[in-house]
Amino acid sequence: MATARETFRVPSGPVDLKAIDPRGRPIGPRDKADAALEMEDLGARLDARQEALYAEGAAGGRRAVLLVLQGMDTSGKGGTIRHVLGMVNPQGVHVASFKRPTEEELAHDFLWRIRRQVPVPGRIGVFDRSHYEDVLVARVDGLVPEEVWQARYEAIADLERELSDGGVTILKCMLHISPEEQAERLLARLDDPQKRWKYNPGDLDARAKWPGYQEAYAAALERCDSDVAPWYVVPSDRKWYRNWAVAALLAETLDDLAPQFPPPDYDLEAERARLKASTGLG
Amino acid sequence: MATARETFRVPSGPVDLKAIDPRGRPIGPRDKADAALEMEDLGARLDARQEALYAEGAAGGRRAVLLVLQGMDTSGKGGTIRHVLGMVNPQGVHVASFKRPTEEELAHDFLWRIRRQVPVPGRIGVFDRSHYEDVLVARVDGLVPEEVWQARYEAIADLERELSDGGVTILKCMLHISPEEQAERLLARLDDPQKRWKYNPGDLDARAKWPGYQEAYAAALERCDSDVAPWYVVPSDRKWYRNWAVAALLAETLDDLAPQFPPPDYDLEAERARLKASTGLG
Repeated sequence: MATARETFRVPSGPVDLKAIDPRGRPIGPRDKADAALEMEDLGARLDARQEALYAEGAAGGRRAVLLVLQGMDTSGKGGTIRHVLGMVNPQGVHVASFKRPTEEELAHDFLWRIRRQVPVPGRIGVFDRSHYEDVLVARVDGLVPEEVWQARYEAIADLERELSDGGVTILKCMLHISPEEQAERLLARLDDPQKRWKYNPGDLDARAKWPGYQEAYAAALERCDSDVAPWYVVPSDRKWYRNWAVAALLAETLDDLAPQFPPPDYDLEAERARLKASTGLG
Repeated sequence: MATARETFRVPSGPVDLKAIDPRGRPIGPRDKADAALEMEDLGARLDARQEALYAEGAAGGRRAVLLVLQGMDTSGKGGTIRHVLGMVNPQGVHVASFKRPTEEELAHDFLWRIRRQVPVPGRIGVFDRSHYEDVLVARVDGLVPEEVWQARYEAIADLERELSDGGVTILKCMLHISPEEQAERLLARLDDPQKRWKYNPGDLDARAKWPGYQEAYAAALERCDSDVAPWYVVPSDRKWYRNWAVAALLAETLDDLAPQFPPPDYDLEAERARLKASTGLG
């Protein structure tokens, strides 16, 4: 079977999102029950790898992982965090949500707020939206002049290379949903009193610009995909498939890193002896 | 049955930690299997309450929760985070670990690094160690003159009142273990290659000062317990009991807050109509 990273990696060259089926299941589980079983294994694998990464970081290692999640409203960024990162020790996870920029954030370069949330060594950082908003909503809504957003693709690529050089392994997932699925999910938010807070009338304004957003996503995927910061397109009309795919992408990435529990930097036998001599305190 | 908050709250007046049994099970589950069952319910309760708190925060609410974890080495601060906070959506949790202060941190007031990690509205913040280190190790090891650490109790109480006034509900847990249990856990860390990184020869230096630490803990519990920032002493020689107790304390605290999903601040019917009109995009 092809790996998740091979399967979901955005093809090189011009990106045509219409050619990627949001309900597709090219590899992996065929149904929800299958996916649930596989998620148990993936969860154990993610948790074990993350613990070793954390240990490595505690011993002076510099490596970290950064998972960037992007997608239209209701594509499931929050649900992915809950179901995938919820399987990992919360001590090892740092979630940063990027909303509409504050006054302070706007007073700085667009990457300023991003840099502040880069995961420290040993952690899996998760960006719920990201610096890509600055070439998505900013482009579609013309929040800045074209020469400004055009220059951002290169600035983003530079930042990602810099982070990678510093030890951060980056993977970026576009959660790809259809407008039909979005309509159903928005309606579900309006119908359920416990979900109404998630709905924002602005969601429909963005929805009305669907083709413009798809074009902006395609540009971001095409111009900012690289081997040090690959873009994956995750079919997301089925929640269980989306969760499985992101968990698999993350697990493969961590497998590659193969973090190791560090050997002791102290004399094991001497410490055993000291400990033995210390008993009977209190 | 008495509540967890009634049971574990530090008694007012002089604190005698020797009078509290680290293997005690004054309320709650009698064994590990019982505890596992109760944890399922507690997990669902914590997760549901946290989601409502998050929703409240997204709608402009100012409330957050701050769980402070303190305890001797191996008392289980990390394990508590894994097992208790691991039951909550990671998006709603912010874990801050306070290690030995960096140069930059030491250049500031001792509360500077603490303020930077206060949870934003809607979140459960967790401090793995905290500002209390500055009246624990700092006092026991004489890192600062006595007049300096003596003044910190009041500074801490002031900060906690300020946070409380700002909407942060604080609960502080001392994970109370016996020196015998610590010896076993330290030995387990030396024996297991996957745990050796957690061991630090300095742990034995702190262990040798056990009575001094217990005295410093007692002082912190006595002088910094308040209704806006209560201290709880959690019997922690049994890991399953410790996890249950912290989960119960957190659940009772969240129950009291009773966060509510906010009502829509938009016209529900108008949005349903707009959504209907929008279908057929893409």
